[in-house]
Amino acid sequence: MQALPGFRDFLPGDCAGRNYIFSRWRDVALRYGFVEWDGPILEPTELYKKKSGPEIVTQLFSFADKGEREVAMRPELTPTLARVVAAHEREFKKPLKWFSIGRFFRYEKQQRGRLREHFQLNCDIVGEAEMAADVELVALAIDVLRVFGFNEHDVIVRISDRQFWTDFLQEHDVPVERWDELMQIIDKSERESPDKTAEKLGKLADPVQTILSRGGKSEKLDRVVNDLRARGLANFVEADVRIVRGLAYYTGIVFEVFDRTGKLRAIAGGGRYDNLIGQLSDGAVSMPALGFAMGDVVLGEMIREHPAAREKLEAAVRAGKKIDLYIVIAKEERRGDAMAQIQALRERNYKVDYPLLPTKVPKQFQTAEQLGARVAILFGDEWPGVGVKDLATGDQQLVSKDDLLTHLERMLR
Amino acid sequence: MQALPGFRDFLPGDCAGRNYIFSRWRDVALRYGFVEWDGPILEPTELYKKKSGPEIVTQLFSFADKGEREVAMRPELTPTLARVVAAHEREFKKPLKWFSIGRFFRYEKQQRGRLREHFQLNCDIVGEAEMAADVELVALAIDVLRVFGFNEHDVIVRISDRQFWTDFLQEHDVPVERWDELMQIIDKSERESPDKTAEKLGKLADPVQTILSRGGKSEKLDRVVNDLRARGLANFVEADVRIVRGLAYYTGIVFEVFDRTGKLRAIAGGGRYDNLIGQLSDGAVSMPALGFAMGDVVLGEMIREHPAAREKLEAAVRAGKKIDLYIVIAKEERRGDAMAQIQALRERNYKVDYPLLPTKVPKQFQTAEQLGARVAILFGDEWPGVGVKDLATGDQQLVSKDDLLTHLERMLR
Repeated sequence: MQALPGFRDFLPGDCAGRNYIFSRWRDVALRYGFVEWDGPILEPTELYKKKSGPEIVTQLFSFADKGEREVAMRPELTPTLARVVAAHEREFKKPLKWFSIGRFFRYEKQQRGRLREHFQLNCDIVGEAEMAADVELVALAIDVLRVFGFNEHDVIVRISDRQFWTDFLQEHDVPVERWDELMQIIDKSERESPDKTAEKLGKLADPVQTILSRGGKSEKLDRVVNDLRARGLANFVEADVRIVRGLAYYTGIVFEVFDRTGKLRAIAGGGRYDNLIGQLSDGAVSMPALGFAMGDVVLGEMIREHPAAREKLEAAVRAGKKIDLYIVIAKEERRGDAMAQIQALRERNYKVDYPLLPTKVPKQFQTAEQLGARVAILFGDEWPGVGVKDLATGDQQLVSKDDLLTHLERMLR
Repeated sequence: MQALPGFRDFLPGDCAGRNYIFSRWRDVALRYGFVEWDGPILEPTELYKKKSGPEIVTQLFSFADKGEREVAMRPELTPTLARVVAAHEREFKKPLKWFSIGRFFRYEKQQRGRLREHFQLNCDIVGEAEMAADVELVALAIDVLRVFGFNEHDVIVRISDRQFWTDFLQEHDVPVERWDELMQIIDKSERESPDKTAEKLGKLADPVQTILSRGGKSEKLDRVVNDLRARGLANFVEADVRIVRGLAYYTGIVFEVFDRTGKLRAIAGGGRYDNLIGQLSDGAVSMPALGFAMGDVVLGEMIREHPAAREKLEAAVRAGKKIDLYIVIAKEERRGDAMAQIQALRERNYKVDYPLLPTKVPKQFQTAEQLGARVAILFGDEWPGVGVKDLATGDQQLVSKDDLLTHLERMLR
């Protein structure tokens, strides 16, 4: 029996790699003053329909539970955020700067960079309408990538402004009800033939083509890039109005992060969604908000393809695998004494292992090395003294059991 | 809209409490030389039926996915462990000492200590038939509780031996096919009237009653208690053959952990299941194994009820909430310079926050205190000097921007 298609088992090495990604995500979010929160894995299906329309159900792991509730395994976090913020926003000072790390599920065709179960970092700022929040969020997204060892030659944040397009549509007297449709045509234009796009756009084809080829002017985007320059991050970004992001609910700055080679799918994406919390809470609470999500799958592929990033991950995995101390029991009469010391050492938070069964001494030293122990401690004839061996240098000293903790403290800390 | 019944939202304070529990769980498992792994949240329903019989489905969040697969949200980890170990055991040295921290789901009536979504620590040892592994596992379970601040007056591990009962049934010529049924009657006897139990047990009623009232003798149990004594943990355990654990697949030592007051449900439980991996892998791989699981719900209740444990948790939550540095922007002309410093400080892994918008200086200091900052750094008239204020003592110094990092390093590390 195997895992279901699109689902992963995390053997210890994989799990250590995953934990490395989580811990870097968490570090950077905390540096930015974000606080961690989380929601349930299962939510009422209605929550997702409300945001994305009834057709979303075809991409969900959704079902009726034993109490006849229509439920879905969460495909994204934003609807839960809106639900939780609407219920609790009065308890917190604005803006909220919240992040979360967790599992998400989509029933979709398996392909490179897409799985049915994956992990995401979500970072959101709620309750701040000013552009300074957009800049802070983009900077955070950039720093999350830099912490893995990527630089401005590896990744690019393409930033756009939905308002640039709504202004454009307004100038061309396009009725509001057609905006979503036209935005989606523009969003897809990079992946479709110019003729097909032109046909769909009708009389807007020419002006849109001009913008798509020459770029567009947005003061907002200029300001974002400028503010990122003050932080030394301008080389990571590119104002590019061709990014519109398909989702209808974005209202301002939107952005997507790519590897510069263009080989992979977007690593992260997000933007401002000022009306969504109001809409999802049926108007109970209306608050400006913005956020981004970064998945572990494309990021993991990118880390594996970049030697420097890969080495950082592998070094972390190697370090995490190592134990501190291996206890060599050379005389079985000393096992009880060894167990008492093992207990004391573990209480000091050392990672300690030992042979569960009587084992030849050379075999025990071999295990000590396989487990990456820094020190082996030998319980044998010298009791109440123990042999303390530095496994890197080979140095061995006889230490009285009463001095063992102090001795190790000096050696290892 | 609320979370589904039995599911929890984790606001930042709740999430910090949850992370505290996870990080203590992880610490202790690592001390014992366990390595972390994980599996998917969704598995083929068959995996659970195979272990627990078809009736398990009534307690599962199970459904047919869009590809017509019968799938279930995992109620426990052991079947996944058996699946993964059967597929990969050759890649690892025995015994495997694996732990995992994750979410589990059961569709059941909500009641105190039981939710539909909860978290569990799972620790398993695979590939070791000797009792030394059982002792190691029980010691780990005890130390996981001690790390939260519980002592031998707070918790008790009741240890039993399934083999004691199988020996008993054999002596009384009970056919093997009735063993499971009789074990379950004995398991339930504490919660049922003696008459009803006697009726169900028939001619075994008297000898069973004798054992349940006077206790039973098991050399194995004596050895476990003795070995725990060498570690100083004997006062945490009690040999008690009345614990049989309902589940049919246990084959040797079994144990359950309770609070001494008896007010709460079991905090953790586990035991040896030497035949399960073979059974779940259709005989492909047969390996002795043992493990335990501890949930976050009862543990969380117990922590809240014990002042010392509660204070440890709250101190961790308070510490986790604090930022290191708050940047006070006294002159808006200095915002760009402040942003460059903020970037540099965050790269040093300091947790840094600042006002996104122009804000009066006293208000900024107030925010700094609310966020628990240790130091406020003031950007104003003294540029390129900045005011560095220790918010605990009120001391303030003027520091050149070029010396800021070194100065903070000295102050904070």
